Amino acid sequence: MKRDVVTISREFGSGGRTIGHLLAQKLGYAFYDQELIVKVAKESGLAEKIVEQYDEYATHRNSLLYALALSANAGAHGGMSFVSKVQIAQGKIITELADAGKCVIVGRGADYVLRGREDCLHAFIYADKDFRAERVLRLYGETDQKIEQRLRDKDERRKLYYRSFTMREWGDPHNYHIALDSGVLGQERCVDILASLMDT
Amino acid sequence: MKRDVVTISREFGSGGRTIGHLLAQKLGYAFYDQELIVKVAKESGLAEKIVEQYDEYATHRNSLLYALALSANAGAHGGMSFVSKVQIAQGKIITELADAGKCVIVGRGADYVLRGREDCLHAFIYADKDFRAERVLRLYGETDQKIEQRLRDKDERRKLYYRSFTMREWGDPHNYHIALDSGVLGQERCVDILASLMDT
Repeated sequence: MKRDVVTISREFGSGGRTIGHLLAQKLGYAFYDQELIVKVAKESGLAEKIVEQYDEYATHRNSLLYALALSANAGAHGGMSFVSKVQIAQGKIITELADAGKCVIVGRGADYVLRGREDCLHAFIYADKDFRAERVLRLYGETDQKIEQRLRDKDERRKLYYRSFTMREWGDPHNYHIALDSGVLGQERCVDILASLMDT
Repeated sequence: MKRDVVTISREFGSGGRTIGHLLAQKLGYAFYDQELIVKVAKESGLAEKIVEQYDEYATHRNSLLYALALSANAGAHGGMSFVSKVQIAQGKIITELADAGKCVIVGRGADYVLRGREDCLHAFIYADKDFRAERVLRLYGETDQKIEQRLRDKDERRKLYYRSFTMREWGDPHNYHIALDSGVLGQERCVDILASLMDT
């Protein structure tokens, strides 16, 4: 089977989103990041309210606990848990995008939604803390929060989001087909390696 | 700096050793696996007895506990713990091999010994259990032990060996620059990707 979908999970500040964007450009693929998936979900009318609520809770630090609390309160959501509804809504969108082929999808646990599909390559992009700190400060500037804390918070949030969604460990290489240190290898080489693995 | 040393850590049955061997052939590099490092260590006269004893304990299932017990019994080893002696002996050999350049080193926690060196690429090779089980049975045949148990035992032993040596988690992508699923990507592509990252 032809492999023409790439999913990218990434540590905050590793440049994984940029690598995904450059990869899509290089291959002539469509590019979907978090914002776009939410937009598509809303436009589809499939899950406007659910996605809005989920985005709200995803920014909540203890999102797993919050999700479980909402999940326990399933009666208020028509018998199905809130988390299940979100999983189904997002899963549908991501599957539809992948079915259309030739795309790069960043974030939203797409590797989990599309696990086991032979047309997909699942990549994880990471880098050491110094590299990520320098990059985040250069691109997004300083905030009141110390940079080390910002990296920890963002990674923790992604980890919790992923775990609540998939029951797997974010960053465990077994969830992906390839994991690349963008700090050591560099953005361009990461793009080239991923491009070389697609059957275009 | 020119990158001309590759270290490979690998899950049992993933074919990481073979990938290292093919990579060395492709690049015209020397190839050192566990057996050869032990041989070199013995020939150097640096640590004959230590290496022999360590090999014995490395095959012990609860090697970490055993190492700690030996470590606690440091007095019998001339004031320095057994584990420290092994670390120093193996570290010296691995560092000497890397200093000579143009080589592929498989196993023995070489990624840890050579961490932070810009002339080294550290790779982790893994694959899912079905792929590894099929490969192990094909290459090494059946034993009294069930294949699932053999995979678990071997991986557990490598994990404990690595942890006792490095205090890091074996298989955590942050210890490596690249992690490749040999089952999905295939042996040849893994070799090609790693070769493309070396400055030959």
